[in-house]
Amino acid sequence: MIERLLLGPGPSNVPPESLQALLRPTLGHLDPDFLQVMNRIRERLQLVFRTKNPHTLAVSGTGTAGMEMMLTNLVERGDRVVVVVNGFFGGRGAEMARRLGAEVVEVKAPWGQPIDPAAVEAALAGGRTALLYFVHAETSTGVRNDAAALATVGRRHDALVLMDCVTSLGGLPVDIDGFGVDAAFSGSQKCLGAPCGLAPITFGARALAKIEARKSPMPSIYFDLLWLEKYWGSEKSYHHTAPIQNFFAFEEALRVILDEGLDRRFERHLAAHRALLAGLQAMGFELLPPAANRLPMLNAVVLPAGLDEAALRKRLLLHHGIEIGAGLGELKGKIVRIGLMGRNAQRSTAALFLGAFEESLRALGSAPAGAPGAGVAAAHAAA
Amino acid sequence: MIERLLLGPGPSNVPPESLQALLRPTLGHLDPDFLQVMNRIRERLQLVFRTKNPHTLAVSGTGTAGMEMMLTNLVERGDRVVVVVNGFFGGRGAEMARRLGAEVVEVKAPWGQPIDPAAVEAALAGGRTALLYFVHAETSTGVRNDAAALATVGRRHDALVLMDCVTSLGGLPVDIDGFGVDAAFSGSQKCLGAPCGLAPITFGARALAKIEARKSPMPSIYFDLLWLEKYWGSEKSYHHTAPIQNFFAFEEALRVILDEGLDRRFERHLAAHRALLAGLQAMGFELLPPAANRLPMLNAVVLPAGLDEAALRKRLLLHHGIEIGAGLGELKGKIVRIGLMGRNAQRSTAALFLGAFEESLRALGSAPAGAPGAGVAAAHAAA
Repeated sequence: MIERLLLGPGPSNVPPESLQALLRPTLGHLDPDFLQVMNRIRERLQLVFRTKNPHTLAVSGTGTAGMEMMLTNLVERGDRVVVVVNGFFGGRGAEMARRLGAEVVEVKAPWGQPIDPAAVEAALAGGRTALLYFVHAETSTGVRNDAAALATVGRRHDALVLMDCVTSLGGLPVDIDGFGVDAAFSGSQKCLGAPCGLAPITFGARALAKIEARKSPMPSIYFDLLWLEKYWGSEKSYHHTAPIQNFFAFEEALRVILDEGLDRRFERHLAAHRALLAGLQAMGFELLPPAANRLPMLNAVVLPAGLDEAALRKRLLLHHGIEIGAGLGELKGKIVRIGLMGRNAQRSTAALFLGAFEESLRALGSAPAGAPGAGVAAAHAAA
Repeated sequence: MIERLLLGPGPSNVPPESLQALLRPTLGHLDPDFLQVMNRIRERLQLVFRTKNPHTLAVSGTGTAGMEMMLTNLVERGDRVVVVVNGFFGGRGAEMARRLGAEVVEVKAPWGQPIDPAAVEAALAGGRTALLYFVHAETSTGVRNDAAALATVGRRHDALVLMDCVTSLGGLPVDIDGFGVDAAFSGSQKCLGAPCGLAPITFGARALAKIEARKSPMPSIYFDLLWLEKYWGSEKSYHHTAPIQNFFAFEEALRVILDEGLDRRFERHLAAHRALLAGLQAMGFELLPPAANRLPMLNAVVLPAGLDEAALRKRLLLHHGIEIGAGLGELKGKIVRIGLMGRNAQRSTAALFLGAFEESLRALGSAPAGAPGAGVAAAHAAA
């Protein structure tokens, strides 16, 4: 049995309460007791998203399915869609909107930098915009975009505001109603700590109104919100066969989150990040994003030129049982991504990683700055 | 903890080997050991589908996702698509093709009857047809359509042949290459006996050629076969975060199937069906489809007028812990659907159901024909 400490961009290790729930005896997808599980997932997701949106549920697919679900419902051919692209996942949103026939306007920032809301506002002012799309926590770069500011400019220009919070939800404050975000999606396997395979989503009243006013048919059945709501809502009629065991585990993962409390959870993610950062800096490393826009749960570490990052990841994986993430797209080979998500967001886990990181660097002939053990010591000393 | 014997249209109860695999420690979706799991799933699916198609994999979604995946790749706006509609799921395929902009020609038979291949041939002869779509095992009616005959007429008219084998795969002979089917999809939770949430699919060379020759962009990323193949194939690059635990369980469910042997498994499904049918007939019931086209794994039982089928299902569920399925669409209230799928395809399970069925009917004041216990006795006596 192979066991890994998952410190990449997700999945994270699943807490035992959630993992055990996978073994609950299977129920039918229309069993009255299973329908109660769905109701509890909805209620808990509303708390985690901080929203009163009735149309809040878990799509039976991964985060990418969540992205596609949102865009497929909200975009019609010819819609002008402004997309923030400062990383891989913003680019994926733009690509998906184009496939749906949207007129896509990309607002770009260099990978590793946050987007300037003023630049987004200028793009919105360039024409009647149906939708503003942005990624809250860019998993590819470790950058946090300013969700509240972006939602404000989007609404000022009467655009629907759609947010990717795949990596942020459960790990840093996401406040759908407070931000003024009209629709958002996430994934089950990152800071929410559940097994992969579900995409939590939420649609507010303005988003729903756009869907109800569609002129063209929804090109999807699987992702058709209005149909899916007949299953999740009071009608409880068949739409698809829900992945039962995943729902059990997800219900339980959400309970674990709410038992801990969201604010305590965010503080824990931040404390783990501070410990990791202190250790990395003691070893002479820096993170890619500027200090004000760093994600706590996903740390993009800039590598020195000449370091063989594939060999580094391989050593961590095979000698230490630790997975970290490679750079994506234009950052391939230039960074590694260290995730401290869900149950892995612990100062002790950060320290444990730093020890393994130092050993691996030395083994590759690339000794870090500072005295031996300086990284681990700094992590433990971090406030 | 609520436990059910799942004798509806699926999910079926998961064998312990597969359920236990859900608890394997989580691996990353690009972990070399996880990529080996994917390779083994592909190899095993090729055996189960009886195909050499390299493009054989499990989509990260349910059977409906599988349906949508196939049609979204294979259909372009304006394509003429002939769809066999003799039940709910044929109708869903037609609806999905229409949403994708196809010119849909429905070939209908009454619900409960198989389709006549000659009627399909006449529709194919009516114009240059891009795709023939049919359901092998109509879960809504218990009817088996003649897959080999339909594939033959489809190919004769140079249409691609796309088959829904959600309910048949693993429970009655499915022979993709032998039938001459170009593409097919299924679900993990019926006769394959794995947890819900994956859709096995296979594309042959002719189907692949149509996708590669598309004039319009694929409207989906999540379901984009060519992109997905970069993850499943030799490139092993990121497409989405696979539902890791489901893959573990699916790998194991496929092993269980191949260890038993497909032919023995088909015989087991047939024996369970014969036992159930003998018992039902001894109690004065009949199945909806004609004898030659009955599915072994899904039995649509015609109810006497006036019997409260919702009360019947409720009694079975709450007093006996047995789930059976309601009628869908125009058959609502007129039939119940009894599934003997995967590990539940046992003569002993059929007999156990018949005893509970008789008790429930008597409790509802609708005593069946025959002496008390006649159904159970007939099931045990069936060859």
